[in-house]
Amino acid sequence: MATATAAKLVFLLVALLAASSSCSAWGLRMPTERAVQAAAERLVEGGADAAAPLIHALRPLVGSAGDLGRRGGVPCDSWRLAVETYNKRDWKTVPAKCEKYVGNYMMGGHYRSDSRAVVNEAIAYAESLKLGGNGKEVWVFDIDETSLSNLPYYATHGFGTTLYNSTSFNEYVLEGSAPVLPETQRLFNKLKSLGIKPVFLTGRTEDQRAITVANLRRQGYSGWMNLLLKPAGFKATAIAYKSGERQKLQDAGYVIVGNIGDQWSDILGAPEGARTFKLPDPLYYIG
Amino acid sequence: MATATAAKLVFLLVALLAASSSCSAWGLRMPTERAVQAAAERLVEGGADAAAPLIHALRPLVGSAGDLGRRGGVPCDSWRLAVETYNKRDWKTVPAKCEKYVGNYMMGGHYRSDSRAVVNEAIAYAESLKLGGNGKEVWVFDIDETSLSNLPYYATHGFGTTLYNSTSFNEYVLEGSAPVLPETQRLFNKLKSLGIKPVFLTGRTEDQRAITVANLRRQGYSGWMNLLLKPAGFKATAIAYKSGERQKLQDAGYVIVGNIGDQWSDILGAPEGARTFKLPDPLYYIG
Repeated sequence: MATATAAKLVFLLVALLAASSSCSAWGLRMPTERAVQAAAERLVEGGADAAAPLIHALRPLVGSAGDLGRRGGVPCDSWRLAVETYNKRDWKTVPAKCEKYVGNYMMGGHYRSDSRAVVNEAIAYAESLKLGGNGKEVWVFDIDETSLSNLPYYATHGFGTTLYNSTSFNEYVLEGSAPVLPETQRLFNKLKSLGIKPVFLTGRTEDQRAITVANLRRQGYSGWMNLLLKPAGFKATAIAYKSGERQKLQDAGYVIVGNIGDQWSDILGAPEGARTFKLPDPLYYIG
Repeated sequence: MATATAAKLVFLLVALLAASSSCSAWGLRMPTERAVQAAAERLVEGGADAAAPLIHALRPLVGSAGDLGRRGGVPCDSWRLAVETYNKRDWKTVPAKCEKYVGNYMMGGHYRSDSRAVVNEAIAYAESLKLGGNGKEVWVFDIDETSLSNLPYYATHGFGTTLYNSTSFNEYVLEGSAPVLPETQRLFNKLKSLGIKPVFLTGRTEDQRAITVANLRRQGYSGWMNLLLKPAGFKATAIAYKSGERQKLQDAGYVIVGNIGDQWSDILGAPEGARTFKLPDPLYYIG
């Protein structure tokens, strides 16, 4: 009896697990139906004793593919992908329903492994470069959410679900306590060892130079060629400001071999740099 | 006894579930530590009886944040994000370890809801446009993995884990059986109702025109202004070919208000179109 009850419970939980992890809202009916079905069955773990998935004609998705963290019919991970791929623009706050999702993403291993994937590509690219030998190659680094993390601030301010508050955010910046993003620092150090000069280019303003330098040093950064901050009161979009500064670097004879940031406005606008890298950031949008 | 055994099993399974869904590889030590910790605890469902998460100094990630579908230290979902954000380029095949991951992504609801998020943004943008009233606004649509889906082919060919085989793929194309991508068709129809003319621009070649038209019609598409296919034997990158065709549209007096595709090579290269939309595609890369 004990075994039977336990078995029933295990079955129930396994069924729940299977239902939550795989949800076939997409189906196919076509000449190769049997082969597709076989492929679909191979995808279902322990599919041998599971009912064969029904293969339907493709049709508009009615309802949803899981109810976790939805907002206007779109789950939070689809919202995040739309943000990261620049499909979603000019947003003000993380959807309220996605606070937990974004929090878990940022605080767990997911954000870190996504960042690592980007940096792995950046390092592979840097290592493949043939340098001119004249020390003119530079790599542009954004600071916030690229070189340093403001996660301590955002973790206590709703993970991006509340409107940007420049007063409280600047107070946090002036603490100079933002932790390093270790993946970016790995790239930073690798570039130095290759002979590519790092340049910081940030939307932080000139009056924050001292605390920014202190914060960067405290977190282990050293040996950058330049730290370019925005003149106080300078009015321009991030794209205009940052591409203007990159143009100046180029005009001074430097070759921007790479450019990394967490916002599309860090890496769009000519001259972008020979290759650009977009780090994840589901916390805020800068246009 | 039955209850005790069952309870133990339930506990074990719930613990496994909790362990698999949350994994804190990222930690913080700073003045606001207590507040961050409180935020972290709020994130843990049923956190009341769970041990408080340890808050460490930020440090390079040693080991991994979950062992599912790893490849060179990067989990499959981080690989996919790197692909979708154009951080990873010029790849030939989906990592072998990610076949199941990509298969589940494509066959389950995830691909569909990611596509829906993109199309929701595209429709919101289209609806916000003020049209000139002269019928000159057009929207460029890619075909494969944008308007039609080749998932039936890829589902029986390792979900992108095997090298592209032009012979077998072209055989599939000539069946004319590729199903519609319903989200894209929703955008297509919405644009027509707004008075924006759809233009298909595809890497498919001119000799595939008849079957492509038949396939599109069979799947419910009608009323496009143009179907632009690549001249047979035309040698150029996808970016060069597609931006050249968009230039011709512009030279003919059309205004490309939007451009949607699954590859970055669909939407990069001036003139891109006033706004571009990148649909998900973890199956293959076209440079």
